[in-house]
Amino acid sequence: MEGSITHPTVAASASAFSPSASASSPSAAAGSSDFLQLRIGEAPAGGRSVWLARELRRAIADGRLPVGSRLPATRVLAADLRVSRGVITEAYRRLTEDGQLAGRGRGGTVVVAAPVTTAAKGAVSTPYAHRTAGATAAPSAPPSAAPSAAPSAVPSTSPSTSPAAAPSAAPFAAPPGPEIFDELRAAPARIDLSPGVPDLSAFPRTAWLRAERSVLAGLASTELGYGDPRGTPALRLAVVNWLARNRGIRADPDEVLIVAGTAQALGLIAQVLHQDGIWEIAVEDPGSLGARQHLRHWQLATPPVPVDDDGIRVDALRASGARAVLLTPAHQFPTGVVLGGGRRRELMRWAADGGLIVEDDYDAEHRYDRAPVPALRSLLPEQVCYAGSVSKLLAPALRVGWLLPPPKYRKALVEAKRFADLGNAALPQLVLARLMESGELERGLRLLRRRHRRRRDAMIAAIRDRLPDATVHGAAAGLHLTITFGRDGCRASDTDLAAAALARGVKVQPLSWHSQRPSPPGLVLGYAARTADEITEGVAVVGEALTRIGR
Amino acid sequence: MEGSITHPTVAASASAFSPSASASSPSAAAGSSDFLQLRIGEAPAGGRSVWLARELRRAIADGRLPVGSRLPATRVLAADLRVSRGVITEAYRRLTEDGQLAGRGRGGTVVVAAPVTTAAKGAVSTPYAHRTAGATAAPSAPPSAAPSAAPSAVPSTSPSTSPAAAPSAAPFAAPPGPEIFDELRAAPARIDLSPGVPDLSAFPRTAWLRAERSVLAGLASTELGYGDPRGTPALRLAVVNWLARNRGIRADPDEVLIVAGTAQALGLIAQVLHQDGIWEIAVEDPGSLGARQHLRHWQLATPPVPVDDDGIRVDALRASGARAVLLTPAHQFPTGVVLGGGRRRELMRWAADGGLIVEDDYDAEHRYDRAPVPALRSLLPEQVCYAGSVSKLLAPALRVGWLLPPPKYRKALVEAKRFADLGNAALPQLVLARLMESGELERGLRLLRRRHRRRRDAMIAAIRDRLPDATVHGAAAGLHLTITFGRDGCRASDTDLAAAALARGVKVQPLSWHSQRPSPPGLVLGYAARTADEITEGVAVVGEALTRIGR
Repeated sequence: MEGSITHPTVAASASAFSPSASASSPSAAAGSSDFLQLRIGEAPAGGRSVWLARELRRAIADGRLPVGSRLPATRVLAADLRVSRGVITEAYRRLTEDGQLAGRGRGGTVVVAAPVTTAAKGAVSTPYAHRTAGATAAPSAPPSAAPSAAPSAVPSTSPSTSPAAAPSAAPFAAPPGPEIFDELRAAPARIDLSPGVPDLSAFPRTAWLRAERSVLAGLASTELGYGDPRGTPALRLAVVNWLARNRGIRADPDEVLIVAGTAQALGLIAQVLHQDGIWEIAVEDPGSLGARQHLRHWQLATPPVPVDDDGIRVDALRASGARAVLLTPAHQFPTGVVLGGGRRRELMRWAADGGLIVEDDYDAEHRYDRAPVPALRSLLPEQVCYAGSVSKLLAPALRVGWLLPPPKYRKALVEAKRFADLGNAALPQLVLARLMESGELERGLRLLRRRHRRRRDAMIAAIRDRLPDATVHGAAAGLHLTITFGRDGCRASDTDLAAAALARGVKVQPLSWHSQRPSPPGLVLGYAARTADEITEGVAVVGEALTRIGR
Repeated sequence: MEGSITHPTVAASASAFSPSASASSPSAAAGSSDFLQLRIGEAPAGGRSVWLARELRRAIADGRLPVGSRLPATRVLAADLRVSRGVITEAYRRLTEDGQLAGRGRGGTVVVAAPVTTAAKGAVSTPYAHRTAGATAAPSAPPSAAPSAAPSAVPSTSPSTSPAAAPSAAPFAAPPGPEIFDELRAAPARIDLSPGVPDLSAFPRTAWLRAERSVLAGLASTELGYGDPRGTPALRLAVVNWLARNRGIRADPDEVLIVAGTAQALGLIAQVLHQDGIWEIAVEDPGSLGARQHLRHWQLATPPVPVDDDGIRVDALRASGARAVLLTPAHQFPTGVVLGGGRRRELMRWAADGGLIVEDDYDAEHRYDRAPVPALRSLLPEQVCYAGSVSKLLAPALRVGWLLPPPKYRKALVEAKRFADLGNAALPQLVLARLMESGELERGLRLLRRRHRRRRDAMIAAIRDRLPDATVHGAAAGLHLTITFGRDGCRASDTDLAAAALARGVKVQPLSWHSQRPSPPGLVLGYAARTADEITEGVAVVGEALTRIGR
């Protein structure tokens, strides 16, 4: 039951976060006699494993093989299809690497692709449920509705903050404008629990420098000239290999466009959508304020579509009439919900009817208690524009990300990148390619995951102690979690609460910043970049702030 | 007579390139008794040198101190103003560092700011003169006129190229589209004489790595997070100091916006101009094809304004009605002309009436036979948006440049940069700042200048030998020179000539690519990135190509 909504004092048990919860649930073991009606005669000679892997992926995507399904034993299927057992093993291995299958010992090979089970849903609180009702009534609310997301902003002289707090309250004193993240960053604080950054102290400085030395030693002079606007061939290849290993995505280096982070990606996509006559892109609600600001700057309206325990409400998306949607399916920002299997299938149908999915895979590599969630891109490359970056893998300051555009927008996106800046700088691309290809980045990520997990545990423990009325969301993965308060848990607005915390030296983001429609008061708390002690202290300060301003 | 038009077989003598040509011309020695009507009483106590330097700059800018003027001896002016001699010496030193004054031994201190003298003009050929007549008639020709710049493009099956040449001729087979520079780069060639890159083999790899090690050792983790969209404070300071030392520009680090090269700068400027209701920006003709492509992509029309021996025709600019203009005043691309003193003053009057100047100072640091030309920005900061980059100082692949916007566009440009990519990557900025502040970059530049100068000399010699009918332009500075042919010098189009050269393994750019209006056939030849031997051979091949296709 990953990424779902749990209450630490009630439901944050080990089993609630464990992937075995879904894997061990009663599964409809697929028959192996006429399993998926596979006709091996369709497979090209010498390409049977690839063919079988594709057939399996398709079956998982369209729901014929739901999560929890057990696959036939390799020996059985091999006999059935009259191929060598190696063909089957190889196909299973591919999907296992993709994170869509997992070996369960005697339990056989099981589909783990979309691990949110509907059976678990009734057991958890559903704070967004009240907003899903009637959500389809006005899903394409105009962008100007945004400022109302923080209706009860704290003026800097508000009595609810201590006098010393007045200057620090500034970021929360008005609806968030384009400079809001600069302002929040500039506000002095003892402990910064802003979401969105990994542990920057873990940046592999030595490995980076070593790779750079090696790059500079082997560099041809011409590589220092003007280059391919799509990025260096070395990094495009490294990204393709990375995505195959870590995200179950098969792509060709020529399909990759290196960009200056997801922020630039959104701007380029907006420009290309305009050329296609598209002037709005639906977004998850709640959903990233930063992403929304970027899209709006680039003149795309962002009609909100509600998110519930299974992710975006595809019925509401359909009703919105939007032709494109921005999604964070692996770990929805900020709720942490994983897009459920049923929703995935609904979404695929929506996209098959011509909808474009922009998949922001912003922190998919960070997961603790669950199997990896396959990228939508791996299922429907024709309708998905996939965006990833190193901002959460290494550091935002590198400003490197990648797009896998669907074929119809590939050329236009390359042109947009060309005229944006002629392509990313070459040296950092080449250094990054080395770190990716040498395994250095994966080693670092494993280290980060262990560290982040301890910090997440510290945060959940601190919330249990200091904010007992809070409900925790989306803690199975990522770099942050979200807490919400019930009616009695917090009578003030969450901007008031964030301002009061900042006045006491702790930086957090109010959930309402990320909501276009009314949301329960809540906070988005980053844990990745802080030590366990800082987290414990920071959450305690939030608890004090809550008590003061009227819990 | 710097940057003016010379014929190597006739006028490329040492004196023709020497700044002493103008410095030793009869100068209106300024009187020192009531010299500039200076009233020292207006100077703040303790700031007299700064005040005097400002007064001198103003007088040079508005023409009261024309180029060639001799300033009063320091002793004389000190006595006259009743200040210590050190005050005068210090003010003169500032302007000398700026490149506006030069000590001439017994000749005294002389104004060398705008070294093209009108007296020299009659002595040189004026290949653009025929286009200046009637230029005001239709200066705002629509952008769609551009494709006609290469009306006689070579189809790939053209008999004028050898069969082996057919594939290589592709870049010249049609009017240049957005991918033209990629195509030219991709075309195989033995010798690449494309303009626009410095000697990339001189990139200071060791110094870069050393600086990077030092940056990584001292970096705070927070510097790896999201940062100021304007750039790192360290680089903004280093740029300000660089510009003060090398370009006579005084600015505050808060005025600097770090961008991903001039290409991005043009896009950001276009977006900001649109907000101000400006949808066209005049450009020099001939002028950079690449810049024009960027501006047009960003929906700015680019009415051409003719360039003559003194630079852009300001009367034609005024007649065009354009509210903004893109200029390369220090070394016009591609002609190499320096904006003359009279034109400068005319331009200042145009700008003072509300015109915006975008000053692309693309290769101002590369000069061989002349004093530095002060930036327009140093004279009129309110109306000039200054753009510089390291593309010609170090390497285009670094994708780092800077803007000094006029106050009215500062905020909007920061927002545009924020929504473009959240700001440049931090590490390369910090490394570059170290190279600039340590003097490493200036040392490298001195080395480059010597090397580039030898290569330029080799190119001029080769042209004299192999292309005796060509006229050389703009060889006193920069990384390239331009040659033109008279009616009898080249009967084919210059795209034919470039295609024929490419078919023989030598890459050059036809002048017509950079011309919106009909231009004499010509070539733009980069010499900085090639050895003297390669240059000699490359020019010889161009000579063969010319003979074959019908000189």
